Amino acid sequence: MAKTEALDVTAETAAGRLAALRAELAQCGVDGFLVPRGDEHQGEYVPPSAERLAWLTGFKGSAGMACVLSGAAAIFVDGRYTLQVRQEVEERLFTPRHVTEEPLSEWLKENLRPGQRLAYDPWLHTEDQVRRLEKTLDGLGASLVALEENPLDAVWRDRPAPPKAEIQLHDLALAGRSSADKREELGGELDKAGVAAAVLTLPDSIAWLLNVRGGDVTHSPLPLSFALLYADGGVEWFVDPDKLTPQVVQQLGNAVSIEAPERLGDSLSRLGKAGHKVLADPATAARWIFERLRAAGAEVLPGADPCLLPKACKNAAELEGMRRAHRRDGAAVSRFLHWLSVEAEARAAGDSDGGPVSEMEAAKRLEAFRAETGELRDLSFDTIAGSGPNGAIVHYRVSEESDRALGQGELFLCDSGGQYPDGTTDITRTLAIGAPSEEMRRRFTLVLKGHIALARARFPKGTSGSQLDSLARYALWQEGLDYDHGTGHGVGSYLNVHEGPQRISKLPNSVALKPGMIVSNEPGYYKTGAYGIRIENLVAVTESPRGEGEEREMLAFETLTLAPIDRRLVLRDLLSAEEAAWLDSYHARVRAEIAPQLEGAARSWLEAATAPLAE
Amino acid sequence: MAKTEALDVTAETAAGRLAALRAELAQCGVDGFLVPRGDEHQGEYVPPSAERLAWLTGFKGSAGMACVLSGAAAIFVDGRYTLQVRQEVEERLFTPRHVTEEPLSEWLKENLRPGQRLAYDPWLHTEDQVRRLEKTLDGLGASLVALEENPLDAVWRDRPAPPKAEIQLHDLALAGRSSADKREELGGELDKAGVAAAVLTLPDSIAWLLNVRGGDVTHSPLPLSFALLYADGGVEWFVDPDKLTPQVVQQLGNAVSIEAPERLGDSLSRLGKAGHKVLADPATAARWIFERLRAAGAEVLPGADPCLLPKACKNAAELEGMRRAHRRDGAAVSRFLHWLSVEAEARAAGDSDGGPVSEMEAAKRLEAFRAETGELRDLSFDTIAGSGPNGAIVHYRVSEESDRALGQGELFLCDSGGQYPDGTTDITRTLAIGAPSEEMRRRFTLVLKGHIALARARFPKGTSGSQLDSLARYALWQEGLDYDHGTGHGVGSYLNVHEGPQRISKLPNSVALKPGMIVSNEPGYYKTGAYGIRIENLVAVTESPRGEGEEREMLAFETLTLAPIDRRLVLRDLLSAEEAAWLDSYHARVRAEIAPQLEGAARSWLEAATAPLAE
Repeated sequence: MAKTEALDVTAETAAGRLAALRAELAQCGVDGFLVPRGDEHQGEYVPPSAERLAWLTGFKGSAGMACVLSGAAAIFVDGRYTLQVRQEVEERLFTPRHVTEEPLSEWLKENLRPGQRLAYDPWLHTEDQVRRLEKTLDGLGASLVALEENPLDAVWRDRPAPPKAEIQLHDLALAGRSSADKREELGGELDKAGVAAAVLTLPDSIAWLLNVRGGDVTHSPLPLSFALLYADGGVEWFVDPDKLTPQVVQQLGNAVSIEAPERLGDSLSRLGKAGHKVLADPATAARWIFERLRAAGAEVLPGADPCLLPKACKNAAELEGMRRAHRRDGAAVSRFLHWLSVEAEARAAGDSDGGPVSEMEAAKRLEAFRAETGELRDLSFDTIAGSGPNGAIVHYRVSEESDRALGQGELFLCDSGGQYPDGTTDITRTLAIGAPSEEMRRRFTLVLKGHIALARARFPKGTSGSQLDSLARYALWQEGLDYDHGTGHGVGSYLNVHEGPQRISKLPNSVALKPGMIVSNEPGYYKTGAYGIRIENLVAVTESPRGEGEEREMLAFETLTLAPIDRRLVLRDLLSAEEAAWLDSYHARVRAEIAPQLEGAARSWLEAATAPLAE
Repeated sequence: MAKTEALDVTAETAAGRLAALRAELAQCGVDGFLVPRGDEHQGEYVPPSAERLAWLTGFKGSAGMACVLSGAAAIFVDGRYTLQVRQEVEERLFTPRHVTEEPLSEWLKENLRPGQRLAYDPWLHTEDQVRRLEKTLDGLGASLVALEENPLDAVWRDRPAPPKAEIQLHDLALAGRSSADKREELGGELDKAGVAAAVLTLPDSIAWLLNVRGGDVTHSPLPLSFALLYADGGVEWFVDPDKLTPQVVQQLGNAVSIEAPERLGDSLSRLGKAGHKVLADPATAARWIFERLRAAGAEVLPGADPCLLPKACKNAAELEGMRRAHRRDGAAVSRFLHWLSVEAEARAAGDSDGGPVSEMEAAKRLEAFRAETGELRDLSFDTIAGSGPNGAIVHYRVSEESDRALGQGELFLCDSGGQYPDGTTDITRTLAIGAPSEEMRRRFTLVLKGHIALARARFPKGTSGSQLDSLARYALWQEGLDYDHGTGHGVGSYLNVHEGPQRISKLPNSVALKPGMIVSNEPGYYKTGAYGIRIENLVAVTESPRGEGEEREMLAFETLTLAPIDRRLVLRDLLSAEEAAWLDSYHARVRAEIAPQLEGAARSWLEAATAPLAE
């Protein structure tokens, strides 16, 4: 604080906000406070009313945490954000730290004295997170203190109101299963396990269970709320009544009682006083919930949110919806790819009016093609449109400052998706603008070999995504290359574009892939400062019929995504006969499904783009 | 016990032994007792003096446990032994149970009453095992009781004396590193971690650390003993002095003090009384050790045996020894394969005197060829020699009763290995006797494709064996086939043929493969009642030099095993160009290394057997 004289500490500046928070912390009698990016629901997106980290520090990334002490403050971000944090945050106020290489525990060791009290808001940290923090603080001889009222909220004067987006019913025809049916089954499982109720804090679990959708956050059609699922299949839904229409309330019926969000604590206390066993997920539910249950005398059973697995295993109607959404989305993406092949090539070569196509222009065009379907509710995430070196930044988001032309002889990586009522899409295509180099083609083909190995894979029931990950990397590995991200994430059905519990990753994960699960298949390769390659389709896990002489019950992947893969980037000689046959057969499917939706030049372009590889 | 009137309960019968044990249990005031197969060292092989399970029940398998209550007794075995246990054990005395499908916990629920006391010998169960047992007993309202004296030993009248095989020094030229150097390094690591001493209970860890070998059990050149490694690099070695020669004692020097095995407890108590931190491995060290340390006031740090990882990473001298042992062993195996190709073919076809070659004859011949090298110290395990349907029994051991002819048109699976002073070998070859069927050839080729995928793999530093497992299964999976065992186990250097901590397996294992680790590469396929296929080579993890344009530090496998793979079983058209090139190049290496060691017909046979595949 010695250097703050020169700072403008009015409420409108970051310095002023930090000073106000510090004053409030002193009032509360604590020595520091943690400000995470997440909210009470631990989702990927948070509403403006919960953007505490951005308000305090200016940092707008999707993950991070600040720690404010009286004489020092730091912000901890992962490898995606080490550059961005320096652009957005005043370093004289918050020291930027890499969350794993320079972790909070190390920083606290240097800055927190034994006996001091570090505070946190128990609504904003999960039970697991708090347990880890407690260990850290124990090791330092300091204490971790939960505050009933968030001191940042007390000084956040212009804090936006919580979102109140109207909640819609998710059609039974799309959900494939009534809420009553889902509640009865999951309730029955709780009953069998002697559990009175399960606490649900994940908005996508509640949306799935009640067959509702909302709009409280961007990109995911979620209403923010809490719920208690009882062993008899009844639900107490703690949701702002302003978001509800009579139609929704009526459809939910008597077994779902609507309660104000602030009543959740009372219900937890009631369960506790009755000595009931209550299930809560320590990986996702707030510490506050565990504390309240324990204080009231409940037997808390730590366990996975019971909606996670059934939500991940899409039923026939949801799969049919995903296929329909992908046919629609594939046509929009194909129109975009055609536009790009004409505009970007011509303008990069100077053969057309206007400068070259820019990343932002491309992203807007793609969104417009999706919007033209008339079914788009939202993008499923901010489009990643990276040309040349920007393509090598795995989590690149285009901005006015970073916007870059699609130059001749470069690669353009475009990762995008749409939220449609019948399904969520997520597709990455990497395109050559002008003539690609041999190295680009070779590495693209290695990535493609990995993609195909996974797409063609059959595997026994019980196999986890971790077991399959290396299939997508083997070809790259053989040439001393790799990529530093997972190979596949789960995808919701008009829900979150990233959902668990399954994933395809180097990280150990023992969740078996089950029929109906959707995962992405997205190996990549990134040459820093030069270009990025990623080929991403969504696939559904399916039963694979047993052929003659076959002995095991096998599963396989059905590829859902339908859009051409840039054949100009494929070195045919690097593909085996089976791999080339897979690509030709995939392209034949794309042609059959998408061409009838296109007209004129776009259709002709698609037909050429999906022709078999030349021998 | 109602039906025991008809039993002969003299000491010479199983019924008599069981009755004597039950009488002893009553004397001890307990209601039951656990009799595991393992001894104090938890090794794969136990000396006759520790064959308690076999003495009591007659069961001679390598894993299992009996539970004896006053009115009931059962024996728990895994899937390998469900048939054998019924042949060896009197079912009216011990109910055979499948250890995972009909676990001990279920059986105890039916047979142990709340409040009863189940006893165990704390020397024969690890800390982890006892913790699991405690949970089980807790759940039943019964108690688990450690007995100071083993009640079975009290009634085992003709119990063999403990082994006293002479201990030899393991040449520094073969070990590659002095014991003092190893002790100093590991001691230094303990010191850094604030640990006063580590308890070593695994005979192979102690043999590695002290550069000694012994002969207390079959197939593994191990002296049975305990040791304490101190932070200053000193060792207290608790070993029967009768096994030691003055030469060994002198070579070990002053930093290794020889103590009688029964003095271990005193040293643990001394460490505890001084309030020291002591490392012990809960996965391998006996409960007794943990109890003694805790009782004496030690701070027990549970952690992996510190020798495991450095022992697994062979140094240059050990790798050179392994290569030498494999050249020698490869010549012996090649002589055997030549003999088999002449004898088995001719005698199966009736073209020669005598009946067809039998499994036992083949196994004996193979051992004789290995013995002729003059360097063989032992087989590294009982040879698995399975013809026809016996080949489909994964853990088959030939016996007089099961011995079977190598018939025309059948496959013969032979899995064997030798213990040489410079290395341990383990090789499986599957041979066609006469003309194999197309199905046999196709499935052999699928197994071979998996073997080659692993043998050719390059992978980034940090990769675990679990991540590579599916590479060996992919080709089989594509045709609805699989195998129910791991793909690779670690192998010691003139030590255990099965050693950790690394493995290649479906089971999650986060141990990264490191240069110098030896693992087997042994995919297989088993058609019950018909035939078995396995192709096993040992491979060493090596650094893979970075080629031009390559970006990552990669590892690869160097194949150590040198013997022909039966080309008559390979369908060339199923192999890719790279796979065929791998096989041809492997065979060229086998020819170059092995042919000069052979003469006459055997050499000509090898040259033909290692010729390139026909196009």
